[in-house]
Amino acid sequence: MKISEFDLIQSIKGQLATAHPALLQGIGDDCAVVKKDSKNVFLISTDCLIENVHFDLKHFSFIDLGKKAIAVNLSDIAAMGGKPLYAFICLGIPPKINQTAISDFYAGVDHVSAEFGLSIAGGDMSRSPNYLFIGITVVGETPRANVKLRSAAKDGDGIYVTGTIGTAAVGLNYLKRKRPAENQYIKAIKNPRPRIAVASALAGFAGVHAMIDVSDGLLQDLHHVMKASNTQALVEVDKIPRESDFETACKTLRLDPLETLLTGGEDYQLLFTMDDKTMDALSDVLKLNRGFKITRIGEVREAAKQQLSLKLDPYPLIRVNDATGREIFVKKGGYDHFGT
Amino acid sequence: MKISEFDLIQSIKGQLATAHPALLQGIGDDCAVVKKDSKNVFLISTDCLIENVHFDLKHFSFIDLGKKAIAVNLSDIAAMGGKPLYAFICLGIPPKINQTAISDFYAGVDHVSAEFGLSIAGGDMSRSPNYLFIGITVVGETPRANVKLRSAAKDGDGIYVTGTIGTAAVGLNYLKRKRPAENQYIKAIKNPRPRIAVASALAGFAGVHAMIDVSDGLLQDLHHVMKASNTQALVEVDKIPRESDFETACKTLRLDPLETLLTGGEDYQLLFTMDDKTMDALSDVLKLNRGFKITRIGEVREAAKQQLSLKLDPYPLIRVNDATGREIFVKKGGYDHFGT
Repeated sequence: MKISEFDLIQSIKGQLATAHPALLQGIGDDCAVVKKDSKNVFLISTDCLIENVHFDLKHFSFIDLGKKAIAVNLSDIAAMGGKPLYAFICLGIPPKINQTAISDFYAGVDHVSAEFGLSIAGGDMSRSPNYLFIGITVVGETPRANVKLRSAAKDGDGIYVTGTIGTAAVGLNYLKRKRPAENQYIKAIKNPRPRIAVASALAGFAGVHAMIDVSDGLLQDLHHVMKASNTQALVEVDKIPRESDFETACKTLRLDPLETLLTGGEDYQLLFTMDDKTMDALSDVLKLNRGFKITRIGEVREAAKQQLSLKLDPYPLIRVNDATGREIFVKKGGYDHFGT
Repeated sequence: MKISEFDLIQSIKGQLATAHPALLQGIGDDCAVVKKDSKNVFLISTDCLIENVHFDLKHFSFIDLGKKAIAVNLSDIAAMGGKPLYAFICLGIPPKINQTAISDFYAGVDHVSAEFGLSIAGGDMSRSPNYLFIGITVVGETPRANVKLRSAAKDGDGIYVTGTIGTAAVGLNYLKRKRPAENQYIKAIKNPRPRIAVASALAGFAGVHAMIDVSDGLLQDLHHVMKASNTQALVEVDKIPRESDFETACKTLRLDPLETLLTGGEDYQLLFTMDDKTMDALSDVLKLNRGFKITRIGEVREAAKQQLSLKLDPYPLIRVNDATGREIFVKKGGYDHFGT
C-alpha cells in the first residue's frame, strides 16, 4: 500500500456520515473531543504499535515496550492540554511471545500509568499469526475552555517547541548498532516522556493557541497545524533546539543533521503557537517545571497575505531559513508510517 | 502461547495499580463503566479482530468485514444496556491490501454506524508486515441505574437468551465450503446484529439482573456470569433455542449438534438473568421489538446451597440436563481466541 496516511484519513473522513452533536472534534486532531458535562470534555485518542513497523523486539525489552506504548499515547492527551484518566489495551500476541513477556509488558504499562495517574480500564487479548500488535486507546479530561486544537494558530503567533528535536531519530540509529552504549539519544527513543505537566500548564493560557505533539517529525507536525489553521510558518533552522553534540552524533551515525532535525520522528515534544506576549506569564510556569525548556523557532503568517514558499515539497506551507535568511530544502518527507 | 485469555486477564488485573475513583467498573466485564455526570455513565469497550485468527479474507468482502467489525463491538455496548455514541478504529494494513479495499471497509463501517447512531470519532492507520489487524474501541452511554453487570445474577433468577444459539458456528462451517449458498447461518456469521434496541429496553427493568453477549459460546459466557456473580446455573438443553433445521445442518456439516449449540461462538445474542416475574412487563417490549424472541433456558442457583455439578470441566458452575434430567457433558471447551 503506497498512500499517505494523512490523505487516506482525509478521504475516509469525507466518506463517513455526519457526526454526533456531542462530538466537538472528530477525526483530524491528536484526540477526539467529546462533551462530558457543562464545563468539561473527554479527550480520546487511539494509536497502534506494530512489531517491525513501529518497534523491533531486538531493541526493546518488554518492560520498555510497555512503558513506551503508554507514553506515546499519553503524548496525544498532552497535545490537547489534557489530564490522563483511562486506557484500553488491545494485544495481538504471536506464539513466540510467552506469558512472562506479557507480564513484563504490563509491568512497564503499570509503571508509566502509575506515574501519570492513568487507570488501565479494559482491553482485549488475542492470538496473532506472527507479529505483536498493540492497540491503545486513552481517555483524558480537560476543561472545555482549555482544549488546544491544531486549527487555532493565528497570524503573528510565535512557534515554540519544548525540549530538543531530532534526539529520538538519532537514538533510533544508535539502537541499530551492535551493543549500543546507553546515552540521552537512546533514552529519548526508548523511554519518551509525555509532556503532561507542561501541556496542562500551557493549556491554562488563552494566549497559547494551537498545539500538537512532535511524533511524525517537526515539519510534518508543523504542516498539520498550518494546514488545519489555514496559515503558513516561517522557521529559522538555527533556532531549533538540539542536543549539544547533535551534529557530532549525526556525523558518527552518517546521518544528514538537517534532515534528521526537520523530519526525524518520535520526539514527543510539544509544538505550539502562542501570542509572544504570553511568554512573561509562562516563565513562572517554567520555573515550576524545572528542566523544561521552551524555544521559539519561528512564526506564523496568514496564508492569504503572502506565499512564503512553494518549494518545500511536500510542505508548501512552511519556509525554513538558514542564518542568512536563505531558504533550506530537505531531501525527503517526514516520518510516515506507510513509508517503507 | 498456550494460556486462556480469561486467566491471563485475571493475572494482569492483579498486577495493575489501583483504579481511578470515577472508574465504576474496570477490567472484567463487557465494557468499562466510567462516570460521566451525576446520572449517566460512559461504557467503553475495546476489541481486536485479526486476519487468520478472527476472520479469513477468503470468506469476507471488505464491506462485510467493516460491518462485522462494528457490529461485534456494538454488541459489547448492548450487553451492558447502553446506547452507542463513538468509535475509534486502529488499522494495521499489510501491503497486499489496497486503498479501494480500505474504502470498502469504511463503507461497511459507515453502513452499520449510521444504522445505530454511532459516530466514527478517530483512529490510526499504519502499515502491518503481512496480516490485517483491526482494533476498535467503542464508547456508549446509559443512565447509571440501568447498567447491567455480569456480577448481578441472583439465586432463583431465570436464565434467558435472545434469538437462536449455535447459528453463527454452523454458518462458519458453511463458509468454509466451496461456493456456499447464502442461508440464515452464513448471514449470522457474516452480518451479526447487535441487540442494541432490545438490550436498551431490557436495561430499563430492575428485574433484569446480569447481562452478557454470547460471543465466546453459550457455556463460556454463562460461566463468566456465574463466576462473577458467585452463583451456579442449571440449563435444560432442550430449551436452548436453535434454528428449525439446526440438527439437519449439523449433520450435513458433520458437526456435533450439542457441542455446536453449547460452545459455538459469535452469535452475539444477549444472555441475561431475570426475576421471572418481570416477564409480564417484558412482553410489551417484545411486541414493540417484533421478531425478537426471548427464551428461558434455565435458572440460577446460589453456589453455597448445593453443588450442582463437578463434572462439566471446564465449567463446574454449570449443569446441563437433557429432557430426562440427566446431566450432559460436552467434548471440548468454548471458543477461546488463544485456542488453535
